Order: sequence, then structure tokens, then C-alpha cells
Amino acid sequence: MDLQKLNNLRVLITGGMGFIGSNLCRALIELGAKVTVLDASLPEQGANKFNFKGIEDKIEFVQGDVRDEELIEKTVQGKNFIFDLAAQANYLKSSEEPLLDLDINCKSKLILLEACRKHNKEVKIVFTSSRMVYGKIESIPVTERHPTNPLSLYGIHKLTAEKYFINYFQNFGIRSSVIRIPNPYGPRQQVKHSSYGIVGWFVRLALDNETIKVFGDGSQIRDYLYIDDLVDAMLVVAVSDKTDGKVYNVGSGRKTGFKEMADTIVDVAGSGKVELTKWPDDYEKNETGDYVADISKLQKDTGWETKVSFKDGAEKTVEFYKKNKQHYW
Amino acid sequence: MDLQKLNNLRVLITGGMGFIGSNLCRALIELGAKVTVLDASLPEQGANKFNFKGIEDKIEFVQGDVRDEELIEKTVQGKNFIFDLAAQANYLKSSEEPLLDLDINCKSKLILLEACRKHNKEVKIVFTSSRMVYGKIESIPVTERHPTNPLSLYGIHKLTAEKYFINYFQNFGIRSSVIRIPNPYGPRQQVKHSSYGIVGWFVRLALDNETIKVFGDGSQIRDYLYIDDLVDAMLVVAVSDKTDGKVYNVGSGRKTGFKEMADTIVDVAGSGKVELTKWPDDYEKNETGDYVADISKLQKDTGWETKVSFKDGAEKTVEFYKKNKQHYW
Repeated sequence: MDLQKLNNLRVLITGGMGFIGSNLCRALIELGAKVTVLDASLPEQGANKFNFKGIEDKIEFVQGDVRDEELIEKTVQGKNFIFDLAAQANYLKSSEEPLLDLDINCKSKLILLEACRKHNKEVKIVFTSSRMVYGKIESIPVTERHPTNPLSLYGIHKLTAEKYFINYFQNFGIRSSVIRIPNPYGPRQQVKHSSYGIVGWFVRLALDNETIKVFGDGSQIRDYLYIDDLVDAMLVVAVSDKTDGKVYNVGSGRKTGFKEMADTIVDVAGSGKVELTKWPDDYEKNETGDYVADISKLQKDTGWETKVSFKDGAEKTVEFYKKNKQHYW
Repeated sequence: MDLQKLNNLRVLITGGMGFIGSNLCRALIELGAKVTVLDASLPEQGANKFNFKGIEDKIEFVQGDVRDEELIEKTVQGKNFIFDLAAQANYLKSSEEPLLDLDINCKSKLILLEACRKHNKEVKIVFTSSRMVYGKIESIPVTERHPTNPLSLYGIHKLTAEKYFINYFQNFGIRSSVIRIPNPYGPRQQVKHSSYGIVGWFVRLALDNETIKVFGDGSQIRDYLYIDDLVDAMLVVAVSDKTDGKVYNVGSGRKTGFKEMADTIVDVAGSGKVELTKWPDDYEKNETGDYVADISKLQKDTGWETKVSFKDGAEKTVEFYKKNKQHYW
């Protein structure tokens, strides 16, 4: 897939100061794209100013909220691509503040799509959804046709938003693609609390020489996707025409045991330890069962391949946080 | 199923002044229930004061909107059952006013569920969804496990709301059931414009001795459900424990051709005529293909059966509108 065609094109990243957005931003700048980042920097979400360290001058930064209709109408204009990453990203918070989750994770998507319908029908949008849309997993690997019965309002709203993007493609020709992300990890992930990304949190515990608690026997399967592989997927989905109006799984293509993940982090960090512990009662409600994505649809349509093993990804992640701890702890 | 147990129980019907709500209301009053109706009487939706003709004194009527948090918190208290029917019911309007559709068809459901979580955890809720959640039909009869890819924002929001009710049952024990309604028809349906219920609209055209236009060859299969059968289904779902946290299709159990439906109406009315015409371009986007519901899950869990043939239902409907035309045209 020819990513060079992004050179000089105008790209908007909503939620671009967060983990995924800021890494995507760096890749786009290297490809010569003109990047606008819109971010509300909401507390307890992923935004971190340090994520822009060294690229501050290469970004047009708009401090603002995706729920602001007027601002969005203005900001979408003239963009060739929009990566829509802005989100209330904490599934536990979604049941504590359901109306807030609805506003950020659904209403703002309608605002964005309406703005494009009125002011920029030529744009291509990539929306980042989540493997949480599947809910309890019936069998792995999970294809895009697996039933979608999310266990949280977060998952429900991600699913709703997915359907908005597909609907606006079908009804108004707004070219949109959806990718369902499993457990992403890597540099610049927020690690201030435990309910964001599990790998980042465990890296923090290991580097602080703390005990990492693993529920059950730790055999549950997960799909940990290194940020560079994820960013590649987002870029190829954006530049391909075959992806318009479609939903794709992304993933590492590998099953990784939960304890195996934790052990690798401790091993790579050279500190911390892993301890098995029993499941708390209220966690079982949100336990989806083993998950690994079937990524053949995306591979077939775009030729995308993952490049980073979990061990290599963990090493890069540990290295980053060792160096930049003070900006993330 | 023992509906007598509804005697003296307190029941709230949101959107109770509309077609389905007002018929349900009559059935509940006959069973001895104490009925509260909440309705905002929004223009162009289903509410019609005449729907309460003769039962005005037996209803506690609350003029109000399901988007009003404070009112809903007050109104849910002390109720044994809630039938949640309030809706923006026009799928075409949903794409003209997406944020309005979101507010009425999603946000208000979160408001209702949060109100019950805080003030009435013992209630049983029946939420009326739509067969529109399925989108393009892959094969008939359609079971509840058919893929859900709605073609309109209306369908997307109905699906989202369904998932709220199931989520609040799983996470907070709020007993909720969802029924997916196909094409309901019968007395008290709004017939002011064509984008509400197709059978009611055709009855109006026939009684006005107009021409009923049928697209294509009129062979497309639909599932027309007479209101009394639908009301029965809602009541048995409400009083059964087996239905908690579940989604059910309702339907007539019969395939009816579109032209067959129109011909029957003209025949029963003794006026009007049917004319075949070609599909307009923009209609194809919303055409789902043949639909008939597989209703075996509901039958198995509750023993519910449909009783009214399409011909009998059409006769009762025509008779009602002949007599009450001036209140509905």
C-alpha cells in the first residue's frame, strides 16, 4: 500500500494527544502529511502534552471538544483524512456516567458525520472502535461476523458509533472505515491508573518493582497489538479504497496468555513479580473469555502485516517508560 | 400465562397515547391494572387524544417528556411494570434530525434505566424495539440471532436501546425484556402521513377511494401483526420471569405478500384500487428484502400464540376507521 501518497495531504486527528493519536501523528508527520490535532485534554483520559515532545512545531493544535458542533463544522473543512480517536476511553466509567459516555462516544460522532456531510463530503474517515463490541466470545479466532453483545455501555456506544459511520457511507457516500482494536500497547499510553491499558499498567508496576496480580490461573488468551503495527493498519485502511464502508478487526495474529504477558514484562523490565490471585466477584461480569482477532479480512484487502512480536514490543515499551517515567506516572 | 395477576398492579406506559400504547392501556384497564400514561404528544408522532375515548377517567395522565430526567425519576417510583413505548417513530425523520432521534430513542432510555436503578429496582420493563434492527435480511424466517445491521439511524438507535436494557439487567438486575415488532397495524394507528404504518396508510387511501401504489411486483414478503396479538405478547412478556434480560421477535407467524396485503384492504374496504409502479431510486436503500419473524422463542418461553388472521385484522381496522375517520385523517 502506497503510504507516500499522504505527503502534503491534510489530516485531522481527533483525540490526537492520546496514546494512539500521538503515535499516529508522528507517523503521519514522517510521511509528510499536514497534521491538525483536536483534543479536549479531558482529565483521566489519555491526553498527555509530553506525547508531542519534539513534534510540537509540526502540528496544528486545536484545543477543543468533539461535542462542540460549531468547532467541528469549522475543523473538518479542507481535510483529506480524519482519524476519529476522541473518546471516553474507560469502560468502567461508562456505567458510572452513562450520559457522558453517550455524549462523547455517540453524539460527537453524529456531529462529526453531519459536519462532513455539510462541509466535506470528499473526506475519508477512519474510526477506532474496540474489540469490546463483541462481548462474551463464543469461539476464537473472532471474525467480524461474530455476534456483537457488548458487556458495557462503552462497548455498546462503540458499536453504535461504528454503525453511524457505515450508515453515512451507505446513505451519503461519506467514505468511512472502522477498525476494532484489541489490547493496544506501547510508548505514550497513559499509565496513571489501572483502568486504561493493562500492558502499560503492568509495565509501570514492574518498573516500580511492585507485584502484578493476575486473576485465576492467568491462562486467558488476549491479543496484544503493538502501537506501530496498529498505526500501520490505520494508515493502510485510510489510503485504500477497498476499505470504504467496511469494518475490520486488527490484532497481532497471535494468542498470548495473560500470565505469559505479565511474565514477559517482568522479565524484560528486570524488576517486579507476578502473583496469581482469585477473580473478584464483580470482575467476572466484564470478563469476555479468550480473545484473539481473525485479521484475514484486513490482510486480504490491504496487504497489511504485523511486524512486532510481544517480546520486542514489551522491550520498546519498557525502554520508553524507563526514560520518560516522570511524564507518565 | 396468568394475566389476572396484573389486577391492581401499577403500570406506567411511556408514549401511552400512541397507537400501541393506547391499545395496551385498554387491555391493562380491563385486567384491573392501575395505569399511568406519560406522553409528550409531540407533533407528527403517534399521540392522539381520541385514542383515550371512553377511558379518560381510568388513566392517570402525565403530560411530559421522557427526556425530562427529574420527571422520569419521579414517575417510575412505585410502579410494578413499565412499558417503554415513547419514541421518535419515523425512520425517515431519523436521518433528517439525527440528534433528536438520539435524544428520544437512546438518551431517554438511559434516563429511564438510571431512574429505575436509583428509585425502583424491583420494576419489570418491556421495551418495544423494531424489526428494523436487522437491516438487510439474509434469510427468512428471521431468528433473534440474525445479524443486526440497521439501514437507518432509527434502527441503529433502537438496537442501542435494546442493549441498554439487557446491560442494566445483567449489571444491575433491572428486569427488562425487549420485543422486536415487525409491521403492526390496527385501530388507533396514526394515519396523518405515509411514513408511519403502511397498513394504516393504505386503509386510509382505500377508504378515501384513492389509488394505492405498490412498488415492483408487490411480491415482497412482510409480517403484519394485528394490534391485539401484539398487546397479548407484551402482556405475557411482562408477567413472565423467563423473559428477563431477553430479546424476542414478535410476529404473525405468517408470510404476507405486499400486494396481497393491499388487495385485501381494498377488498375489505370496498373502495380504492391497487396499482403496480416501479421502485423510486432512493427507496431501494431502505428496502430490507423479504421479512417474516421466527417467533418460536417467544412461543416456547410464554405459550403466546397469535389469534387474528390478516383478513380479520383488516376488517376490524377498516371498521374502526370508517367510524372514527374524523379523528385520524
